[in-house]
Amino acid sequence: MKIVAMIPARLGSQRIPKKNIRYFGEMPLLAHAIELAKKSDCFSEVWVNSESEVLGDLARQHEVHFHKRPEELSTNKATNQQFVLEFMQKHECDFLVMLNSTSPLLSEATVKRFCQFLREDKFDSVMSTLEEQAESFYQDKPLNFSTERKINSQDLEPINKVVWAMTAWRRDSYMQDIEKGGAGIFHGRLSFFAIPKDESCDLDTEEDWRIAEGIWLARQQVDSQPKYWSPEGAGA
Amino acid sequence: MKIVAMIPARLGSQRIPKKNIRYFGEMPLLAHAIELAKKSDCFSEVWVNSESEVLGDLARQHEVHFHKRPEELSTNKATNQQFVLEFMQKHECDFLVMLNSTSPLLSEATVKRFCQFLREDKFDSVMSTLEEQAESFYQDKPLNFSTERKINSQDLEPINKVVWAMTAWRRDSYMQDIEKGGAGIFHGRLSFFAIPKDESCDLDTEEDWRIAEGIWLARQQVDSQPKYWSPEGAGA
Repeated sequence: MKIVAMIPARLGSQRIPKKNIRYFGEMPLLAHAIELAKKSDCFSEVWVNSESEVLGDLARQHEVHFHKRPEELSTNKATNQQFVLEFMQKHECDFLVMLNSTSPLLSEATVKRFCQFLREDKFDSVMSTLEEQAESFYQDKPLNFSTERKINSQDLEPINKVVWAMTAWRRDSYMQDIEKGGAGIFHGRLSFFAIPKDESCDLDTEEDWRIAEGIWLARQQVDSQPKYWSPEGAGA
Repeated sequence: MKIVAMIPARLGSQRIPKKNIRYFGEMPLLAHAIELAKKSDCFSEVWVNSESEVLGDLARQHEVHFHKRPEELSTNKATNQQFVLEFMQKHECDFLVMLNSTSPLLSEATVKRFCQFLREDKFDSVMSTLEEQAESFYQDKPLNFSTERKINSQDLEPINKVVWAMTAWRRDSYMQDIEKGGAGIFHGRLSFFAIPKDESCDLDTEEDWRIAEGIWLARQQVDSQPKYWSPEGAGA
């Protein structure tokens, strides 16, 4: 089974300017996604899909392929649906995995598990999700809990929220769905794949960036022995 | 309107040992909640509710009241419903706000807005929530999105997830609900109150602690000028 990784990247990001070349820890954000795809060792090919030759240089520096996206598919109006299709038209594969650079906390182990799930060959579209077990309201009403009694959160029906860290589509059926006027994105046999909570961040705003870098810093931190209070003063 | 803050705290926490006296940044975790309640300046009284005299010492050191919780309500089996009722039976007020020490990123501004919301006097139970706008699955089916087309996430119907950072109950109606065999927690006119995403953490596991401390560290960090990559090398 040929599984191809495509990392979409634009230079002119809006809410976080130039996020793909901004350093996140020791590497530019885009480089984290490239290195993750390479290290996970489950893709036949790794591609950066961008309108920007600067990001092309970065891709080449990290020794992955570069797909030059047409300018008209690089505006804020262009949709995932369109540039995914354009990429698929040019590159053969069984499954395409869109790996987002905006999820820099994603781990190698999770990418591997995701690809194993694809190899089971049961679905056409697979969305990465964050599984939440918490009392939730939907349309102003309790969704997964009763107001009559309180139950333990681990007994609540979970809600799986799409996080877009990784998304996979079967190439043939995706293209057919678009031809028939469908949206592609959620086509065919649709499944979700829950990823760990601390890997699910999505860098959409400066605040998100700050949080994710905080987590990153915390992971790097060596001196993290808990300290405890006592009435006599702080101790180890 | 008399609004009382009650901070529940146990010394024998399970998943994160002794979390209430463990230093989070420069203060023990419990002290953050105490200082937040004091600074917000919207409570008639601030109480720590605990079985532990050690936590009583910490409360006294920070000049707030200490409610000694009976031992039988301090086991892992004891429910919120029970210790909230026991506290209410001993202390008069219009509204009781349960402020959780496990949400150390909650801000003064949010606590103030929450109390203003209570003063509008429209509800009996108010839960703090995190508002999520993302495609979500519930019971294996799409909940708030159609597979036919992809719409912008800001146009998706939000899901409000209870986070327990702050919960408020009208004392009279809560006690009446329990007398009638109800659960108290979600009684009467129920509302949710969305709080900012980066304040909504809940320290339940060591992983949560690590994430929250990471955010905390990031907030403290002064040297946070973004750095950008260029083909010629990293620059400022």
